[in-house]
Amino acid sequence: MPSPFTLLKTFGAARRGQLRTRYGVIQTPVFMPVGTQATVKAVTPESLSAMGAEIILGNTYHLFIRPGHELIARFGGLRQFMNWQGSILTDSGGFQIFSLRELAKISEDGAAFRSHLDGAKLFLSPEDAVHVQEALGSDIMMCLDTCIPFPAEEKEIIASTNLTTRWARRCRAAQTQDDRLLFGIVQGGMDAALRMQHARDLIGIGFDGYAIGGLSVGEDKEQMLAMIEACSPVLPSDFPRYLMGVGTPEDLVEGVWRGIDMFDCVMPTRNARNGCLFTKRGKLIIKNGQYRDDPRPADESCGCYTCRHYSRAYLRHLYTSREILSYQLNSIHNLHYYVQLMAEMRQAIEEDRFASFRADFYGARSGN
Amino acid sequence: MPSPFTLLKTFGAARRGQLRTRYGVIQTPVFMPVGTQATVKAVTPESLSAMGAEIILGNTYHLFIRPGHELIARFGGLRQFMNWQGSILTDSGGFQIFSLRELAKISEDGAAFRSHLDGAKLFLSPEDAVHVQEALGSDIMMCLDTCIPFPAEEKEIIASTNLTTRWARRCRAAQTQDDRLLFGIVQGGMDAALRMQHARDLIGIGFDGYAIGGLSVGEDKEQMLAMIEACSPVLPSDFPRYLMGVGTPEDLVEGVWRGIDMFDCVMPTRNARNGCLFTKRGKLIIKNGQYRDDPRPADESCGCYTCRHYSRAYLRHLYTSREILSYQLNSIHNLHYYVQLMAEMRQAIEEDRFASFRADFYGARSGN
Repeated sequence: MPSPFTLLKTFGAARRGQLRTRYGVIQTPVFMPVGTQATVKAVTPESLSAMGAEIILGNTYHLFIRPGHELIARFGGLRQFMNWQGSILTDSGGFQIFSLRELAKISEDGAAFRSHLDGAKLFLSPEDAVHVQEALGSDIMMCLDTCIPFPAEEKEIIASTNLTTRWARRCRAAQTQDDRLLFGIVQGGMDAALRMQHARDLIGIGFDGYAIGGLSVGEDKEQMLAMIEACSPVLPSDFPRYLMGVGTPEDLVEGVWRGIDMFDCVMPTRNARNGCLFTKRGKLIIKNGQYRDDPRPADESCGCYTCRHYSRAYLRHLYTSREILSYQLNSIHNLHYYVQLMAEMRQAIEEDRFASFRADFYGARSGN
Repeated sequence: MPSPFTLLKTFGAARRGQLRTRYGVIQTPVFMPVGTQATVKAVTPESLSAMGAEIILGNTYHLFIRPGHELIARFGGLRQFMNWQGSILTDSGGFQIFSLRELAKISEDGAAFRSHLDGAKLFLSPEDAVHVQEALGSDIMMCLDTCIPFPAEEKEIIASTNLTTRWARRCRAAQTQDDRLLFGIVQGGMDAALRMQHARDLIGIGFDGYAIGGLSVGEDKEQMLAMIEACSPVLPSDFPRYLMGVGTPEDLVEGVWRGIDMFDCVMPTRNARNGCLFTKRGKLIIKNGQYRDDPRPADESCGCYTCRHYSRAYLRHLYTSREILSYQLNSIHNLHYYVQLMAEMRQAIEEDRFASFRADFYGARSGN
């Protein structure tokens, strides 16, 4: 089966590649800003493009509930609806449905749940999840998966993971648009053997890419990295690998180091709104009194719009004054930091110096 | 005394002119977006420039309290602090102090008041008001005035207006930077004779421009227009005239019709955040269900960033989802509407067709 992924270069397990969607070619490893409700919070699409973002993530669950996938389809899909010039990956909705566990009921057929907005009874089968994502005009769709709580009993993990496999097979069969990519999601809890078996099961079905799901759910970092390492040797090297919902800048570096190609996380935008800025030297809490008079940009080595034009003192003033521009400027900076970090990792792999890049990355932070 | 204003053309009482500040030349009649806390809410300075805004208003009261004028002075003034490429007018703080009446105490010396943030005791004399505005790097400063409640007793109006005159004289004497412009503020309540007398008193002191204050405080439209008409013949035609805190699009048209050159109002940005969009055909309440599927831009005749890229359906989705981008896009549209309305009025005066412009303006609205 043909792969949308081209591996250009490796450094140990780390991979420099290109991922083709029907919209364009994405340079990997890549970070995908999260646009939950048809907008990356507080950021215009033009700002995203200007900072080099090539693909964003949309949330099927949220868009299914509001404004509805049929409405978005009538507008030509999410890209046209929200004025985004780039590729779009949509999650399946599984994670959100399971996050609202008390409102959800899982059966062989699919997930029955209630809208968190108005309590309306809703149902999403694996087939529905694919058709909703097709209606959204997604370029990369995700299979509907079940999420396993952490910690969980082995029996529950096995049953849940096997259901994810059966749902994945139904998702593959349900696809009607063959220019869209469909990724399988490897589950298996924190059990390495189960993870490997599940990866093999999904490979047996055959997908355009493979995601590692169910991580960053409360486990410690070592467990998370161990699960990535368990999956890595099993996943086909010529297909893209996506670590879902992860994570900190450190997580991105360690993920790439272990062969991950794609990431998404709300952290850069959510932290931005809470006044936490990412810098090469670590986190900067902008409300702190030490920045009251500070004329320097948030990160002196950063070339983002925010750092080119605004001082820490001004950003602190906006934050303490609860001005909307605070969310805008902080979000631009943090997303730029994430996107730029990926660009630097790509370059380091290309130039065969990813080990020293990684050492420098940690060195700059500890020097703070 | 030299005037910063050049009158280019008139149409009846309406005036097409240019106002020179130390920063640049402003085309009048002009609308000044309000940037209360060193930011026009939810809009970047680049967006303001892109829509043609040439001057914004900063609030002395708010900036005095947070982050403080000394801090802003250390950054080279408000323009540098907030990254604005244009002129800045600052109000005197009088209006805000009087809006917090129960926290304020007026004496011959000045206004004693408490910070609305932390209750700290503060004092602002007329001299302080000028020096704070100088520290803020204002291009056009306003005299500290007393605001008269509406309705008020004649005795109170007279006493308050006379105090404003004495304060205005002290403001003029306190000015240390002669490249800044200083405007006097005509008070006088809703009494035409008092307004005219006060205007003459201020002209006697001599200012770089004259504002009409104390309107849009609850009086009806006819009273407001009558007060403008009372001041107009008294104010020197070769100096700029500024109607403070006004108003609706209709108010701008009627103000220009009666010879006003400058306006400011929070209405475009505040209404934007409440989902009320200004259009040539009147107000559009974006949350209304009729816009759920509407693929048209907010205003089909508008060339703003928002209208070029986003549908009413998308704007409605953002608003109902309480997304920050809703504030951003709505604010851009409404400010563009105001700035564009002024540009159209300037052109209509230049082309000697302001009467038909005014008729068309109302015609488009009644046709909605």
